[in-house]
Amino acid sequence: MSNNEPTLNKEVIYNGKIIDVELHEVELPNGNTSKREVVYHNGAVAVCALNADNEVILVKQFRKPLEKPLVEIPAGKLEKGEDREDAAKRELKEETGYEAESLTLIANSYGTPGFSNELISIYMAEGLTKGEVDLDDDEFVEHITLPIDKVKEALQNQEFEDAKTIIALQYLLLNYNHYK
Amino acid sequence: MSNNEPTLNKEVIYNGKIIDVELHEVELPNGNTSKREVVYHNGAVAVCALNADNEVILVKQFRKPLEKPLVEIPAGKLEKGEDREDAAKRELKEETGYEAESLTLIANSYGTPGFSNELISIYMAEGLTKGEVDLDDDEFVEHITLPIDKVKEALQNQEFEDAKTIIALQYLLLNYNHYK
Repeated sequence: MSNNEPTLNKEVIYNGKIIDVELHEVELPNGNTSKREVVYHNGAVAVCALNADNEVILVKQFRKPLEKPLVEIPAGKLEKGEDREDAAKRELKEETGYEAESLTLIANSYGTPGFSNELISIYMAEGLTKGEVDLDDDEFVEHITLPIDKVKEALQNQEFEDAKTIIALQYLLLNYNHYK
Repeated sequence: MSNNEPTLNKEVIYNGKIIDVELHEVELPNGNTSKREVVYHNGAVAVCALNADNEVILVKQFRKPLEKPLVEIPAGKLEKGEDREDAAKRELKEETGYEAESLTLIANSYGTPGFSNELISIYMAEGLTKGEVDLDDDEFVEHITLPIDKVKEALQNQEFEDAKTIIALQYLLLNYNHYK
């Protein structure tokens, strides 16, 4: 199997604030051509963290693409050139006020590899201290907590619809004895 | 907290084959306005399946947005109006040749809710029978298997970078005794 699809021509559709969109005409392994719609994104980070009461720290926010609120672990976009761990600590601090002493990488994960290159790095945070929330001007989040003892039931009931959050909670459950 | 961001104006950026892109000017809960870039997608399905040797059936394919191949559970786009379970059975059959007797929903999962509404339904398939592969004209996939006994190690080594695949493998590990 030939493992690539070289671009023969491309059309830049849109250069936006958080995404760029391009239409590529590619050569397939059989010599035919096809079109690939690609959404480029700078990447994101997300953090699974437990507070002093052994509760998972979650945020609920309205997500315009879904036209509904979604409950997620704290997360945000990587700034240009920013280190992923630094970004994860920054987002946790901004969205929840918590500062983490150390982070462990749970997964580097592509959410929609069929059309986008967005890579989300998901971390487990430890050694938390509580400070002040400092949201972006256009961010409005509600803080929610989930006791670690309820994670199993919440997953079984499919209470979460966000991929990075499901990955983090399953990880927590698989490593329950270490974190409880 | 007001839980919505009504659209004041929108600009259609692109109507494509698998995605539509729009730029929305929205009203924020504090009365200010902001821009939201939104990528609309019809949705997708993915299937975790074990063959007769208790191996997870995986496919490796070149993903243009990443400019590299990715190993994933079999998956594909929902056709307009198609039932999600029907789509999951169809994609499993097309990409691997396997027909599933029954499916169990593992998760409905948004991979990138910050900018896209793509919802992936991830299923566990049971009662497999082997038939013929029938790929789309522009699909080229390599078939890979992962013995169920190696799932834990593969996850610990972070061998997978695809969100739906990580969710499926963690699910399998959490329900190992049922499926082994």
